[in-house]
Amino acid sequence: MSADLVEWRRLFHARPETAFTELWTSAAVAAELRRLGLRVRTGRDAIDLSGVPALPGRDELDAAFARARAWGAGEDDLAPARDGHTAVVADIEGEAPGPTVAVRVDIDALPLRESAAPEHVPARDGFASLAPGTMHACGHDGHIAVGLELARRLASGGIAGRVRLLFQPAEEGGRGARAMLDAGALAGVDRLYALHLGLGLPVGEVAAGTHGFFANAKVRAVFTGRQAHAAAAPEEGRNALLAAAQAAVALHALPRFASADTRVNVGVLRAGTAPNVVAGRAEMALELRASDGGACDELERRARLVLAAAGAGGEVAVDVERIGAATTAVCDPAAVRAVADAARSLAPVTAVHEDHRFGASDDATLLMRDVQARGGTATYAVVGASSPAPHHSPEFDIDEASLGIAADVLERAVRSAAGGGA
Amino acid sequence: MSADLVEWRRLFHARPETAFTELWTSAAVAAELRRLGLRVRTGRDAIDLSGVPALPGRDELDAAFARARAWGAGEDDLAPARDGHTAVVADIEGEAPGPTVAVRVDIDALPLRESAAPEHVPARDGFASLAPGTMHACGHDGHIAVGLELARRLASGGIAGRVRLLFQPAEEGGRGARAMLDAGALAGVDRLYALHLGLGLPVGEVAAGTHGFFANAKVRAVFTGRQAHAAAAPEEGRNALLAAAQAAVALHALPRFASADTRVNVGVLRAGTAPNVVAGRAEMALELRASDGGACDELERRARLVLAAAGAGGEVAVDVERIGAATTAVCDPAAVRAVADAARSLAPVTAVHEDHRFGASDDATLLMRDVQARGGTATYAVVGASSPAPHHSPEFDIDEASLGIAADVLERAVRSAAGGGA
Amino acid sequence: MSADLVEWRRLFHARPETAFTELWTSAAVAAELRRLGLRVRTGRDAIDLSGVPALPGRDELDAAFARARAWGAGEDDLAPARDGHTAVVADIEGEAPGPTVAVRVDIDALPLRESAAPEHVPARDGFASLAPGTMHACGHDGHIAVGLELARRLASGGIAGRVRLLFQPAEEGGRGARAMLDAGALAGVDRLYALHLGLGLPVGEVAAGTHGFFANAKVRAVFTGRQAHAAAAPEEGRNALLAAAQAAVALHALPRFASADTRVNVGVLRAGTAPNVVAGRAEMALELRASDGGACDELERRARLVLAAAGAGGEVAVDVERIGAATTAVCDPAAVRAVADAARSLAPVTAVHEDHRFGASDDATLLMRDVQARGGTATYAVVGASSPAPHHSPEFDIDEASLGIAADVLERAVRSAAGGGA
Amino acid sequence: MSADLVEWRRLFHARPETAFTELWTSAAVAAELRRLGLRVRTGRDAIDLSGVPALPGRDELDAAFARARAWGAGEDDLAPARDGHTAVVADIEGEAPGPTVAVRVDIDALPLRESAAPEHVPARDGFASLAPGTMHACGHDGHIAVGLELARRLASGGIAGRVRLLFQPAEEGGRGARAMLDAGALAGVDRLYALHLGLGLPVGEVAAGTHGFFANAKVRAVFTGRQAHAAAAPEEGRNALLAAAQAAVALHALPRFASADTRVNVGVLRAGTAPNVVAGRAEMALELRASDGGACDELERRARLVLAAAGAGGEVAVDVERIGAATTAVCDPAAVRAVADAARSLAPVTAVHEDHRFGASDDATLLMRDVQARGGTATYAVVGASSPAPHHSPEFDIDEASLGIAADVLERAVRSAAGGGA
Repeated sequence: MSADLVEWRRLFHARPETAFTELWTSAAVAAELRRLGLRVRTGRDAIDLSGVPALPGRDELDAAFARARAWGAGEDDLAPARDGHTAVVADIEGEAPGPTVAVRVDIDALPLRESAAPEHVPARDGFASLAPGTMHACGHDGHIAVGLELARRLASGGIAGRVRLLFQPAEEGGRGARAMLDAGALAGVDRLYALHLGLGLPVGEVAAGTHGFFANAKVRAVFTGRQAHAAAAPEEGRNALLAAAQAAVALHALPRFASADTRVNVGVLRAGTAPNVVAGRAEMALELRASDGGACDELERRARLVLAAAGAGGEVAVDVERIGAATTAVCDPAAVRAVADAARSLAPVTAVHEDHRFGASDDATLLMRDVQARGGTATYAVVGASSPAPHHSPEFDIDEASLGIAADVLERAVRSAAGGGA
Repeated sequence: MSADLVEWRRLFHARPETAFTELWTSAAVAAELRRLGLRVRTGRDAIDLSGVPALPGRDELDAAFARARAWGAGEDDLAPARDGHTAVVADIEGEAPGPTVAVRVDIDALPLRESAAPEHVPARDGFASLAPGTMHACGHDGHIAVGLELARRLASGGIAGRVRLLFQPAEEGGRGARAMLDAGALAGVDRLYALHLGLGLPVGEVAAGTHGFFANAKVRAVFTGRQAHAAAAPEEGRNALLAAAQAAVALHALPRFASADTRVNVGVLRAGTAPNVVAGRAEMALELRASDGGACDELERRARLVLAAAGAGGEVAVDVERIGAATTAVCDPAAVRAVADAARSLAPVTAVHEDHRFGASDDATLLMRDVQARGGTATYAVVGASSPAPHHSPEFDIDEASLGIAADVLERAVRSAAGGGA
Repeated sequence: MSADLVEWRRLFHARPETAFTELWTSAAVAAELRRLGLRVRTGRDAIDLSGVPALPGRDELDAAFARARAWGAGEDDLAPARDGHTAVVADIEGEAPGPTVAVRVDIDALPLRESAAPEHVPARDGFASLAPGTMHACGHDGHIAVGLELARRLASGGIAGRVRLLFQPAEEGGRGARAMLDAGALAGVDRLYALHLGLGLPVGEVAAGTHGFFANAKVRAVFTGRQAHAAAAPEEGRNALLAAAQAAVALHALPRFASADTRVNVGVLRAGTAPNVVAGRAEMALELRASDGGACDELERRARLVLAAAGAGGEVAVDVERIGAATTAVCDPAAVRAVADAARSLAPVTAVHEDHRFGASDDATLLMRDVQARGGTATYAVVGASSPAPHHSPEFDIDEASLGIAADVLERAVRSAAGGGA
Repeated sequence: MSADLVEWRRLFHARPETAFTELWTSAAVAAELRRLGLRVRTGRDAIDLSGVPALPGRDELDAAFARARAWGAGEDDLAPARDGHTAVVADIEGEAPGPTVAVRVDIDALPLRESAAPEHVPARDGFASLAPGTMHACGHDGHIAVGLELARRLASGGIAGRVRLLFQPAEEGGRGARAMLDAGALAGVDRLYALHLGLGLPVGEVAAGTHGFFANAKVRAVFTGRQAHAAAAPEEGRNALLAAAQAAVALHALPRFASADTRVNVGVLRAGTAPNVVAGRAEMALELRASDGGACDELERRARLVLAAAGAGGEVAVDVERIGAATTAVCDPAAVRAVADAARSLAPVTAVHEDHRFGASDDATLLMRDVQARGGTATYAVVGASSPAPHHSPEFDIDEASLGIAADVLERAVRSAAGGGA
């Protein structure tokens, strides 16, 4: 099994899997890395799910497993990942002593229905999502392809120290990074490069560093009231749908902060069973973000007050659970410089930025902070990828010319760091 | 295949099917009626779905079909009902001229998860729902059993005129009665008896007539906004979840009426895909009721204003569709008297009421009005059935002692009417 | 000082005073009753304000006092009422032993701006409100005139027992009746007649009894948050306006009851000081009603939960106070019969009803229950008065032909009761 | 009449007047400027109110006039300002040709109740507000004192060109600057210095320039529904209070923008008359701000959609009016440098900043843009003033040591500019 960057990307694009169900994906990645002769860690050796909230249920995991099998994943590759252990870590040992340089690649897709419009390239060229309602709408398909290409190139040698490739699940939910840290996957890393394609940069432009990470808390709330016949006994009900709707409205009305840029989004709401039944149950997923960690904590505190109050007003119980988080982070000048230098020497690169405003969240920040806490350095690099539509929209698509640039930039940055020290 | 009242009831209780997916149910009913030698109409001969809104989709119908097959329904019985034509009409011809007396039996179940508590009789005695998330929580399982028992008794003869048994789907959604009328199923009926078990009456009590029907409009609203990344571009979104939540809150705040008793219930709300995406789509199902038809129309008019406004405020398109309706009706004294006389002569009947307050809706009212419009008479009779929990709750259960009483009352009322004239 | 019914009514119509500020009104009533030679109780002898919530403040009382003086009230008549003790009680002693028959007349006006339209009779004929923003929009001006006329007629003698005239303030707020009870004003009453003009009946029709009283709780809520600069530090604020608005919306969304007819109305909301300041304070007045006392209590319990929750969600303190109440009551057949008999014998009366549906609240019910609790009897009589607009609207006006009818009916009913025993 | 800086400040602090009612204030300012022998323009010569929305009504203006008289303002000084023409412009002619340098001083107070706490200096030292519910809570009292001191110093001569002092009303509402522009008050100005005390800077620090102005739109919305009796005919009502509350909640839930920092505040809500009346009228004042003018326009567009929708949903008419506005502006380096140089040479100044983040709005930006559009230069200078509480709070107070610093900085900056050219 072998494929070039575009083939890989399209293979993954067509087989999107959401957080912790990346079974086919991790199996394919692990198989390829082993084919290259690398030392590969999978399953419980790569990720520790014991602290992860809101894991997919048995039914969802089983369905994903069946689908991965149907898509041709090997039984041996699937087995360790079966219960959501979908991370893959590969180490490439250098030929001389040197630092450990890690590259982080996120692999999960989003619960979005992909556009079927004829002008949408994946639809037009036959590699659109095979999983209805799931889509690689953030470019992680490209990240995986770049990660595998990088593995292929580095496997052939010529490095000092060690290079570690981190294929991380569940970035979108903000849960995978923490779980890989818990399994020790970052141990010994001296420098970390996180990669993202797109983010508003056109093909040819590269940002060696990023600022403007939002700290982030993702929260799930379950409202439990009491069902009742909507005509014969409405006052016997305790309306969970109404409480959830009131909470949704009130959450969006949380105050703006002068001290930080903030975001509030109730993104999912599911309530009730039938129009003639007072709804006894509702479920909500929301997220809170702030450009400052303390402000994010304060926003989450207030959101929990709003949720509790919406329940209390209608005698509906509300259970609130944190289901994901990211933090802010600062890129290190040395790491930024290494990426910038790598990018500047490349022909197709038309512009190199030292800094790019992110304006969103990524749990790579947890990995960056971990490395930095131990004296290492990190950066979050962006490689332009000209999409016709924003990230997380059904028409999102990356220009595949970005893939080679990303592989070249990372290869050079890794080689320079691994060769020269972080 | 033969079974007594309790056996039948439990058989149907365990195999609940919601509106227009009553495939196993209608197949089983048709098979039994044919076994009794009756003239049976099914499929397009019994129901005309051309005017029915919001029919189940292809996937849901196919799944129901597969399930009905798995439960053992015969292929010939299933075929005509396959696309939602789940009504069954049987005529029993009398031995002498006389009026046509119809009995209406509704057969659909609710999208509710049945209680698994050990004190819930169906759970304890092993006949709980085999279809998770679907439940006979309104007693229609008992209605079907009574209808089949009545067929068995009347099939043996001794009546004048004609008796017509109407097994109606989709009562809960308020769509089945209209569709059976459209197919001409009520043609020629001189007297109509509609039956309901329970409704707050204990076993042993019978109400020969009912008042307090709510006119009813069931409505579906689809909100279409625009998805966006919740952190990177929230202002690009048009938040369908927020619009739907605002609508839900505002709908419940519609004014009470002094001129009529009213009800408003948003019973279902589904919106969004992920916490970090501004939701581009939401779907809502609600119902409006009033003790007066004009007030119900006015309430629906105002609800549509609220829905449109919630969309307009957030630049979200809102499509509103009526998905069901019932009206008010008045029972005729002659029909009430016939049932009351029948009930009074029965030993296990401890009390007979001329009138009972319903306080809910039933599209049997459309059938009653149709019969009355042609000079016939009708009543809606209630046979007490002592449930431990209200209708439409997961713990609902009928006392099976009610089944025999219901069969006896209806048999006598039918025989007297058929014998003596409406 | 003397005036006929119409003159009296117009005098009071032009000088409307709201709850507990009826200073000119009570002074004029007391003066006239004393002129007739009756034994009159005023001030603390007629009403006990110690348990009354939300009395007008010093400023409002002083302003009303100055206005009453400017309108020509006598100092001696004003003095006892000065601090809100605006009830007047007069006893007319009969010439022979007999029961005590009371007539209750409410005297307060509403905080409404009266119509200045040329077709509005008080505006056209020059007796519109002299107090901008205050209006006799419920007919109490007519009640007072009828009460004084009754006093004049009965003062001339010819009765047995005793007749007590109860001029009650603060009916609209639901506070005056309780306070007069607390002062013992109902002591010894054997029969009570409460009078209301209008209520949907045309001139010439009389209802001797009334049903459909709503139990009623009036509530005031004060929200105390924290002011902040809306641009420089919005997160420092605790938005009392927002909490109050959320509460208002949620209160209107309290469920309808199947067990009772209910009403919810947030009628007043005042919040904030300037658009660029996060509001630190809001005040709300609302009322809850139900056709059943227990349902009203339950509705009030839920409303308090909603108010508390709206505060808790935004860290805003909420103080909730009951500021008025009424209950349900049932008219006694003997009292109803007496009024009906009186009405039937009158020429201008075209129809006499035994019963009329009220559909609102009146704290006369507290007086009725008090009399009934001691073995007495009571009724709430309605004399038709054909208004061009509903009660409590700026165009409300009574047909003055109703005044003589009311005086005649009450005089006869009182004489018959006082003469013959309750 | 003469007073030093602190005396002046306390005089004005005790006599706060809100937008367009600064009658005593402008009379006192004009009198002092005339006493100094300056050429003074007042009334219609200083301000054109023809385009000003939401001016105070006749009653409010008359009450302010009576109060100003009671506070001792001279009749001649009061007369031109009587109808809200409360601006004062004074020109000081230099002894040689040169540029025209203007200083803008805002003079209005806020509708806030001042703290009476013993630790609040104005309360402790006896110069707290004499107008209950009105307060100089933004430091404009100090601005006026500084403006008068500046006039006194410059009146003694020694300048080239011309100095113009602009005493502007109605800054808080964002209406005074536009109206002074309309009267031509800025004609010929080559350089503009706007002054603000406080804004988070401690005494001793000076910021010579400011960024982070919010563009601002202040909006008033009047909701007109239909009153009705809350119990007898709630469905006849069209609830203006409910519509306004729904709008308030929905406005606060307008989306955050990624492209700009935004603010939304509904600061005032007044609705309804009595708890038992469905409210027929509500009034709301709100403001929208954004760090970018286009985003502010977009936010206002969406707010108007929300307001219209809240009305449409309840059949309540909504009239929306812009009642004030400010824009963003950029300080010119030359003007900033002049202030910075002036400040650096002063002994009590401990730190001079070239730039300060404002984070609020001021309609001085309209004046700055006007001067800049004609080729002139401008800056917005901040002189630190250590308040124990934020601007716009009841405990706000300026450290009076700031007054002398402000006068010194402005005098030097004016003299240097007037002497040397803008």
